[in-house]
Amino acid sequence: MTGKIGIIGLGLIGGSLALDFRAKGIHVIGHDASDAHEAQAKELRLVDSCDNLDQLIVQASVIIVAVPVHHTASLIHRVLDQVSAHSVVIDTASTKASICEAVAQHKNRARFVACHPLAGTEHSGPTAAISGLFKQKKNIICQGDYSDQDALEQVLHLWESIGAESFFMDAENHDKHMAYVSHLSHVSSFMLGSTVLDIEEDEKNIFNLASTGFASTVRLAKSSPATWTSIFIDNKKHILEALHSYQEHLKKIEQAISNEDHVSLQKQMQRANHIKKVLKSGSH
Amino acid sequence: MTGKIGIIGLGLIGGSLALDFRAKGIHVIGHDASDAHEAQAKELRLVDSCDNLDQLIVQASVIIVAVPVHHTASLIHRVLDQVSAHSVVIDTASTKASICEAVAQHKNRARFVACHPLAGTEHSGPTAAISGLFKQKKNIICQGDYSDQDALEQVLHLWESIGAESFFMDAENHDKHMAYVSHLSHVSSFMLGSTVLDIEEDEKNIFNLASTGFASTVRLAKSSPATWTSIFIDNKKHILEALHSYQEHLKKIEQAISNEDHVSLQKQMQRANHIKKVLKSGSH
Repeated sequence: MTGKIGIIGLGLIGGSLALDFRAKGIHVIGHDASDAHEAQAKELRLVDSCDNLDQLIVQASVIIVAVPVHHTASLIHRVLDQVSAHSVVIDTASTKASICEAVAQHKNRARFVACHPLAGTEHSGPTAAISGLFKQKKNIICQGDYSDQDALEQVLHLWESIGAESFFMDAENHDKHMAYVSHLSHVSSFMLGSTVLDIEEDEKNIFNLASTGFASTVRLAKSSPATWTSIFIDNKKHILEALHSYQEHLKKIEQAISNEDHVSLQKQMQRANHIKKVLKSGSH
Repeated sequence: MTGKIGIIGLGLIGGSLALDFRAKGIHVIGHDASDAHEAQAKELRLVDSCDNLDQLIVQASVIIVAVPVHHTASLIHRVLDQVSAHSVVIDTASTKASICEAVAQHKNRARFVACHPLAGTEHSGPTAAISGLFKQKKNIICQGDYSDQDALEQVLHLWESIGAESFFMDAENHDKHMAYVSHLSHVSSFMLGSTVLDIEEDEKNIFNLASTGFASTVRLAKSSPATWTSIFIDNKKHILEALHSYQEHLKKIEQAISNEDHVSLQKQMQRANHIKKVLKSGSH
């Protein structure tokens, strides 16, 4: 890989990618809709330079679109309109079905590889960018058979070079599973934060009483509202299904607590305990 | 402090206390209802020795009751029945009102100091014991004015010696606040675990797709069902109230997702974001 990489969107994901690629000696051109973000990205040396969209597309051989979900499809379109026959376009959005569908008919569709790196923190913006964010993480590629073979190979190599292992998945399936293992966690954490803020009017109490358990479950409540509004609406169908199931489970444990039903409580929590074994077999 | 410390219940909390006190050169006598736990505690050198309850009470000048909530009050009674005029009895249970009430009329009540150290992990049993668990943590003391001054001073010193800062709180208030900042997190995490396990029949998916966000929100789902059954039932009144409020918040965000109401979603999450500022002012 000797060409330049262009990154559109210099937040947590785009900024962290920029850092990792620059560390490998690759020239990174950035672009962000916010002038303030571009200025921060330059100051933090996330990128070698910033340029406008047209210039970025002309100069870069790999173009990464790392913007909120609801801007992703139109930006991919814009990039594909101008892209050369050997350039590659990647996105990093947390949902995949609507984006894949929106670009399906583009004449340069085969130069696009739909990606979702499973990495992040609860922080956002250029200042949230960190080195090594993708190390030992997974990257999901959707509709890989709609991409040119050489584009796919470049993309696989690109993720591997910064420590992420890619695997392939159907876009609809991706969105469904992510609703459960990621999006629902965010809904639950955001609302847990609000519930506790509502009751703990004297906020000093939260900080005095909160043990590390609360800090852990409420961590995601610090995430970006803009990013997550976009994801929740785009993946509405699957998230509502997951949320419904979650609420059913909450009703069941509420009933057991209300009835002081030891047996049911033990059984429900033993079932949940099984997550221990599942996560242990992973890298967590 | 030159006397021996007796610890009843050698799980995560009791075992970790034992480790810290032994590290200070204090002789620790342990007791656990489970022979297997006593054997593990000795093998792991959590305690200097194990003995039966009567012997432990006679020998120790400080007796710590670190057992599940529903066994705590009766054990404190049993210890107070036999305790000397200069000995001190402490508990470490996660709820305080029912325990304080249950021992209120005991003739030796003044030798008891009701404690709740805000420390723990999702693991349980003697093997979960770790050194330094209480460092920079808070310990809540309830109904301190019902304890003898010398007993209180000993207990404050004891917690301080292992790094925990004590503060005083009304027992009913304690239980209410803990329902929000701790117990609700556990309910939410247990049920999140179950929801995801239900849908992800092929468990390999969870491990492949789960990012660190999910691992964080679901961490508490690994906690001990026995411990938490006991807490949920004892603190039923406040937990049901917290759970009701949480479910109302979930319904509100569900509605906003369903209506694709950007404005409401942004607003709800911006509100939750406020938890960032609150937790930042603490040690998290």
